[in-house]
Amino acid sequence: MSAQTTEVSVLMGSQSDWKVMKRAISVLEELGIKTEAKIISAHRKPARLHSYITEAEEKGVKVFIAGAGMAAHLPGVISSLTTRPVLGVPLNATLDGMDSLLAIVQMPGGIPVGTLGIGGAGAKNAGLLAAAILATGNDALCGRIKAWRKAQAEALHEDPLED
Amino acid sequence: MSAQTTEVSVLMGSQSDWKVMKRAISVLEELGIKTEAKIISAHRKPARLHSYITEAEEKGVKVFIAGAGMAAHLPGVISSLTTRPVLGVPLNATLDGMDSLLAIVQMPGGIPVGTLGIGGAGAKNAGLLAAAILATGNDALCGRIKAWRKAQAEALHEDPLED
Amino acid sequence: MSAQTTEVSVLMGSQSDWKVMKRAISVLEELGIKTEAKIISAHRKPARLHSYITEAEEKGVKVFIAGAGMAAHLPGVISSLTTRPVLGVPLNATLDGMDSLLAIVQMPGGIPVGTLGIGGAGAKNAGLLAAAILATGNDALCGRIKAWRKAQAEALHEDPLED
Amino acid sequence: MSAQTTEVSVLMGSQSDWKVMKRAISVLEELGIKTEAKIISAHRKPARLHSYITEAEEKGVKVFIAGAGMAAHLPGVISSLTTRPVLGVPLNATLDGMDSLLAIVQMPGGIPVGTLGIGGAGAKNAGLLAAAILATGNDALCGRIKAWRKAQAEALHEDPLED
Amino acid sequence: MSAQTTEVSVLMGSQSDWKVMKRAISVLEELGIKTEAKIISAHRKPARLHSYITEAEEKGVKVFIAGAGMAAHLPGVISSLTTRPVLGVPLNATLDGMDSLLAIVQMPGGIPVGTLGIGGAGAKNAGLLAAAILATGNDALCGRIKAWRKAQAEALHEDPLED
Amino acid sequence: MSAQTTEVSVLMGSQSDWKVMKRAISVLEELGIKTEAKIISAHRKPARLHSYITEAEEKGVKVFIAGAGMAAHLPGVISSLTTRPVLGVPLNATLDGMDSLLAIVQMPGGIPVGTLGIGGAGAKNAGLLAAAILATGNDALCGRIKAWRKAQAEALHEDPLED
Amino acid sequence: MSAQTTEVSVLMGSQSDWKVMKRAISVLEELGIKTEAKIISAHRKPARLHSYITEAEEKGVKVFIAGAGMAAHLPGVISSLTTRPVLGVPLNATLDGMDSLLAIVQMPGGIPVGTLGIGGAGAKNAGLLAAAILATGNDALCGRIKAWRKAQAEALHEDPLED
Amino acid sequence: MSAQTTEVSVLMGSQSDWKVMKRAISVLEELGIKTEAKIISAHRKPARLHSYITEAEEKGVKVFIAGAGMAAHLPGVISSLTTRPVLGVPLNATLDGMDSLLAIVQMPGGIPVGTLGIGGAGAKNAGLLAAAILATGNDALCGRIKAWRKAQAEALHEDPLED
Repeated sequence: MSAQTTEVSVLMGSQSDWKVMKRAISVLEELGIKTEAKIISAHRKPARLHSYITEAEEKGVKVFIAGAGMAAHLPGVISSLTTRPVLGVPLNATLDGMDSLLAIVQMPGGIPVGTLGIGGAGAKNAGLLAAAILATGNDALCGRIKAWRKAQAEALHEDPLED
Repeated sequence: MSAQTTEVSVLMGSQSDWKVMKRAISVLEELGIKTEAKIISAHRKPARLHSYITEAEEKGVKVFIAGAGMAAHLPGVISSLTTRPVLGVPLNATLDGMDSLLAIVQMPGGIPVGTLGIGGAGAKNAGLLAAAILATGNDALCGRIKAWRKAQAEALHEDPLED
Repeated sequence: MSAQTTEVSVLMGSQSDWKVMKRAISVLEELGIKTEAKIISAHRKPARLHSYITEAEEKGVKVFIAGAGMAAHLPGVISSLTTRPVLGVPLNATLDGMDSLLAIVQMPGGIPVGTLGIGGAGAKNAGLLAAAILATGNDALCGRIKAWRKAQAEALHEDPLED
Repeated sequence: MSAQTTEVSVLMGSQSDWKVMKRAISVLEELGIKTEAKIISAHRKPARLHSYITEAEEKGVKVFIAGAGMAAHLPGVISSLTTRPVLGVPLNATLDGMDSLLAIVQMPGGIPVGTLGIGGAGAKNAGLLAAAILATGNDALCGRIKAWRKAQAEALHEDPLED
Repeated sequence: MSAQTTEVSVLMGSQSDWKVMKRAISVLEELGIKTEAKIISAHRKPARLHSYITEAEEKGVKVFIAGAGMAAHLPGVISSLTTRPVLGVPLNATLDGMDSLLAIVQMPGGIPVGTLGIGGAGAKNAGLLAAAILATGNDALCGRIKAWRKAQAEALHEDPLED
Repeated sequence: MSAQTTEVSVLMGSQSDWKVMKRAISVLEELGIKTEAKIISAHRKPARLHSYITEAEEKGVKVFIAGAGMAAHLPGVISSLTTRPVLGVPLNATLDGMDSLLAIVQMPGGIPVGTLGIGGAGAKNAGLLAAAILATGNDALCGRIKAWRKAQAEALHEDPLED
Repeated sequence: MSAQTTEVSVLMGSQSDWKVMKRAISVLEELGIKTEAKIISAHRKPARLHSYITEAEEKGVKVFIAGAGMAAHLPGVISSLTTRPVLGVPLNATLDGMDSLLAIVQMPGGIPVGTLGIGGAGAKNAGLLAAAILATGNDALCGRIKAWRKAQAEALHEDPLED
Repeated sequence: MSAQTTEVSVLMGSQSDWKVMKRAISVLEELGIKTEAKIISAHRKPARLHSYITEAEEKGVKVFIAGAGMAAHLPGVISSLTTRPVLGVPLNATLDGMDSLLAIVQMPGGIPVGTLGIGGAGAKNAGLLAAAILATGNDALCGRIKAWRKAQAEALHEDPLED
């Protein structure tokens, strides 16, 4: 897979989701994976979502990440349109994000969505998991992930600092 | 509107939802409204759902009722495909139906779903509300609903009976 | 139905609900539907609520929207007083609005309330759903709703903007 | 107050609530308090509920107990119709009774409902609390309650028995 | 009962509860009922709580109101020490007050606590309910409560004001 | 500490709790620790609970385990009466045990209860944790716990068996 | 990758989890993917879990699936030991599986677990998602997944059958 | 046990947990118990956590306190690595700390964690409970705890102060 191919697509339903979802992009770019981000609402533009997923698959996207809040249907609708892995990030718009978590994770048998945690930590982990998925067929990427994880661990100090 | 036109469509994602959702049909038929019921999964047959909604609108359906469990996307997806009123019935497959309730009711601004209660009482009320919607333009139906409600009240006895 | 008739009544229990509930009015006015808003507490003025609902029906109101928080009885009480469609909007006064959602949506069989989401998105959707209900008998209104939905979709941009 | 006067009224919305609510009656009768039980749905018979409360007050009822499930409005509606103490018992019809609990206890300021626990223990305690309320002006009843409580405590054995 | 007797005692576990619980005192004083407020923690001063309840009953207290947060044991412990009516007010210290609500309302059969809503509305209603309890044996107080309720209703305006 | 001294007391509020709480006794006996079990309701016998805790401490009890359901006050009340470690086991009587968990674990600062999981697993773990507490001053017991844990691990088979 | 290599490992903490987790194995085998299942408790055998993960990676396992109930740590602990994709399945042992869902999905940033739904539907979807992950580098497998999905959709009938 | 030995270890997963967890240290120091605090993430540094627990036990640590948020695995992982008492403090990072509470308290049978309340009150109580555990074999410490509790009670004033 050449560096020029976009391998991960990060989708969300509205501009307001971007400040959280860009954390997925950041970690993917740190790991050298080309991504694209799009705002396409499952509810407001269902036909456009359908055409986008088809186009994205055709141009080489292998993993989809979708962030959504409230009655969060975007990840599940994407999963109904593709057999590629779909990762869902519940966003906290109301009810501390519990509505969104349940609306993403409780998919019926046959249409999977791999769900990450609510909000920023979940978005970051969606990026990492997408990288790990691509690394199942890419040893160099696997090495970069291991290095990233090692650096993350080494950055921690054992002794608490006063605030 | 002649009696031959199907005015309400009742949709659900799987055969197992039928035993609850048929309570919506029952009350609609009691009130003399022609309905049809279909099992079309939003996740497993997204394209078929799209074509069905278009066909249904063309043949005169004016209200859609959709029952769904778990990450219940069916009512919201239908609302994204039509401007007709969509009523949602959360079904209890897991978590006492709380996942389904939140996945149906918490729709983002712009794509409404009128949500009824969890399970059988909700299905019955979806039928009644669909009838009330049609009655906004049909005085004869309005009279039948008033009679139904009156009969319902009169069937109650004030003195408790030992079991 | 002439433009002068008030077709939708938006009710709430206290002045503090107005800042959310006026979003229902806004969307109804954008769609050319005449509405009126009233503050009538189900608990503090039960007899006045009863007389208002009767008067409103007589002067042509076809859909009632009611917003309420906490042990939110207003939509259910209205539904017990009329056979017209009643739409409920749970307001977040405590417990993130979960108390209000359950107190509105879990109506017993026979007395339906079509419930929208918690807070502002729900109020806006209540307005849209009321319009969709009136449009089942009004093709011109149906066209205005379709145009509104199309404009809403077209206002979205696919590429995220930095904050 | 003579023994012939009915001092407590126990209300519920449907026959199916009786098997729980009769526990309130039992404890009131054990304490020598005259009660009556009625099934009057707040939603299905709002006008009858209004007239009943007025009649009951006139014939001497001093405390109202109301059991209700789901979007449980009965206790709150009664409290809006009387200034007598109203005690609410949440019944478990769905969601383990959590919907009912919140719909009863979260009353707005100005219209109180004293809420007991969900189900049978709550019904029994509603009877006891109604008795305690009447005993604030009745020393003989106060003595009977103390005796009841003492007997209850003495019936307990400290050493567990194998099942 | 002379005006000099303290008829209601309002208890709480810490000074920080006072800003909410004083709303109970306010309404009781408006209705001409003599009260006293005390901070006595069920957990930190169990023996003092026991002696206080005995003393309070002896000097004529007829209703106890207790506000508590978190694992809110104060109302239940008071109910175990007296047969007088005990009203509980859940305070929101954590978890939106849901922990406190459940720890107060879910009392086992035999030891009742009449529970009001979470926070300020609940405290106000506890005062009103205590007054209603005393009014079961005091017609003059009953009249003052009716006047209070009427004034409350009349203070409401039906037309929303812009903020 | 001689084998004759009772070192752990296991308390519960009613006979119905015994079938779960005896799992705490079982594990303590397996580890050679002398225990006693008592049914003493915090709400029905507050004075007896007080005297029992004092007696138990005097005869050498070093750890208290208390199981309780619903508005579960027993562990917290015991902690208010002793400075010895108190372990709480939430029992599932209603609401899946969530009411009991919150009523036990959310103790205010200053009065600790070490809380275990809901039901049988929690009761077993309360026994194990009580043993671990005693083992901080008893190396022989520490060795027995290590052996128990090792045997537990060795009893597991890695390959699933068909049912 | 030859057919002889085990590419997916399905782990669980106890034999009782097998009846649910074998649904993941079933779908993987239908899709021609070699798997192995192991019962290794994160809590009872932490060192063995560590050695197993290392061995499994060395012999070619590319995706880990872990099912766990209650305070479900297994998926997160595995993710801390490998950079391969880890999929978590919450099992319903208590609290309807809500405890397990939160203990799996709410991982801190840096250690991802892709979480599926609670129970059997989640286990099946974990198998499907693991297959989709492997298919990002295997076009033949991708074709088999598409065929599986198509067959799934075609098995649905649109007309409800009476029970 | 000499005063120089560290008897309690307080662990947490990140620097941000320190502002809450230091409340455990404060109370332990007030009671004259030597402690140490370390930041060691169960997920980011699993091997280091393992080696630290072994070292700590060898140098005399008798009780472990662990604070963690979200999918809070730290206390349970520590309990899997030692037979010493482990106390868990749920921290509120998301969902009001409910995710963390369930991920800590709902441990499977055989691996106990004594769980305290969410946040600061829980951290303080973890310190107190650790002291009570050590006091089962240390009468002087037991006396200091009794004095601390007495001082805590005496600091309370019974009469509320205006804010």
